[in-house]
Amino acid sequence: MITPVAYIRTFGEIPGHPEGTSYADREELRLAGLHAHKQNGISGTPAEGADAIVLNGGYPDDQDDGDIIIYTGQGGQDSRGRQIADQELTSGNAGLVRSQAEGLPVRVIRGYEEKSVYAPTTGYRYDGLYRVVRHWFKPRDDGFRVLQFRMEKISTSEIVRDFGQADEADQPEAQSLTQSGPVSRTERAIQQLNRRASVVRNIKKWHDNVCQICRTTVELPGGPASEVAHIQGLGEPHNGPDCEENALCLCPNDHLRFDYGALYLTDDLRIVDATSQQIIGKLATHPKHSIGIQYVRQHRSYWAK
Amino acid sequence: MITPVAYIRTFGEIPGHPEGTSYADREELRLAGLHAHKQNGISGTPAEGADAIVLNGGYPDDQDDGDIIIYTGQGGQDSRGRQIADQELTSGNAGLVRSQAEGLPVRVIRGYEEKSVYAPTTGYRYDGLYRVVRHWFKPRDDGFRVLQFRMEKISTSEIVRDFGQADEADQPEAQSLTQSGPVSRTERAIQQLNRRASVVRNIKKWHDNVCQICRTTVELPGGPASEVAHIQGLGEPHNGPDCEENALCLCPNDHLRFDYGALYLTDDLRIVDATSQQIIGKLATHPKHSIGIQYVRQHRSYWAK
Repeated sequence: MITPVAYIRTFGEIPGHPEGTSYADREELRLAGLHAHKQNGISGTPAEGADAIVLNGGYPDDQDDGDIIIYTGQGGQDSRGRQIADQELTSGNAGLVRSQAEGLPVRVIRGYEEKSVYAPTTGYRYDGLYRVVRHWFKPRDDGFRVLQFRMEKISTSEIVRDFGQADEADQPEAQSLTQSGPVSRTERAIQQLNRRASVVRNIKKWHDNVCQICRTTVELPGGPASEVAHIQGLGEPHNGPDCEENALCLCPNDHLRFDYGALYLTDDLRIVDATSQQIIGKLATHPKHSIGIQYVRQHRSYWAK
Repeated sequence: MITPVAYIRTFGEIPGHPEGTSYADREELRLAGLHAHKQNGISGTPAEGADAIVLNGGYPDDQDDGDIIIYTGQGGQDSRGRQIADQELTSGNAGLVRSQAEGLPVRVIRGYEEKSVYAPTTGYRYDGLYRVVRHWFKPRDDGFRVLQFRMEKISTSEIVRDFGQADEADQPEAQSLTQSGPVSRTERAIQQLNRRASVVRNIKKWHDNVCQICRTTVELPGGPASEVAHIQGLGEPHNGPDCEENALCLCPNDHLRFDYGALYLTDDLRIVDATSQQIIGKLATHPKHSIGIQYVRQHRSYWAK
């Protein structure tokens, strides 16, 4: 009997396995430490985050544009690959959300069954590190909802190091201050949306930096602070407009809750807690700030069950 | 009599004035729309943010390493350039903090009086766009405190556009949804600190994602969320270590308050509101999480008056 090799979850590049390396099958990927599973698309857990995904044509909602991938989460399919249930924010799906929240890099592996021009014709290929920049539930035409993740490639000119090695994680008590040493820096390229400063200024001015959800202002020595959140996300695939009608003035805590779907809005701008599905308040409004109900509905379609 | 030309504050590159362009004097800079003032180092206001700075040897606490600049705020000097008072978080100084909070790009202009090897020998030179990544008060040996800003250069291979034009800002009502159009993207290079994932994991696990300041947990559909803040900043010039003893588990709102100096800690881990200088609570602790008092003292030295 062969003892199974334990998978050590590592974030970032695996030494000896640079971008472009090919593998015959999923078992080879697992033994190389690139991906934990032989079946699941996502290698990860809710607590640790996801370290890798396989893109292999399993989900028709995937969209592979090379450096930008709209990746569908796992679950809800029968053995023939038909969607028969909703996907849930658990297991590997919650792992990818954790990676988004922590900024952890995710290895992307493409397989021969993937339809895109970026896929290999045989076997599997490690195609570099990506970051999860957004996630949402997509309501499908068949009535089921699937999770989707927008993933953006991290520049190939850098190698992201020290995103946490397994031996560190297992022995936190063994670390001393001297061992931790200086903190290294990596230059990385990011895609940045060129948001309009006038929208940010108007929204903050109208609401006087008061959060439209909890009415808090974060008071700082240099003046009050708030964040301007978009209701319908900017960029692919949501393509919400960068205008006041699609923006809210929020504190950082409620910005996080809104973007991650803990809260959504009704048509009459009541605030709903997504877990309990209870109305927990009403959005603060300002006469000059008209809110586009179409954006509220789009955001709600991602998160309301 | 000559009518003075109004300065139109623009963030980002000024068309026709690429990086490396030289100017004979401050008036030329002002007329070109690069910097609002003929004397002040900082071109900006607390409400709009700062669009430009001049580095010209006026403050001995400046440190110019080319792509990284430790820039000293304005004020507190007599006419002979001696520090005779504390600097305050007002005026241009508050403008730079606003630029940090909003991620606005700041034009850096070096003058002939600057001592560094990066300065021109005559006149002034526009040296590209930088971002403000951190600020703090530095207690000087003479007892006065000055503001300092860590500024990092934005990659020269890109031009940051559309950070808000003055004509837009002045006529918000004139904007329509169709005018706003698609949102463009810019690839930019950033310096990223390679933080240890094990520190983040341990701190979050010990505190169960509960904020050590306000005891809030941000509950998200994928699980609870929190942020790990460093007490003594990482990187130059603070060089705090990336270890559990120098870290706190905070909600995003209190992370912002802590980093911007609205809150600091006493040696016995009571929480002080920096504006009122009143104790407003006690830091939540965990038996496994020992906090290094030297880091608490360093953070406090930036913010306590």
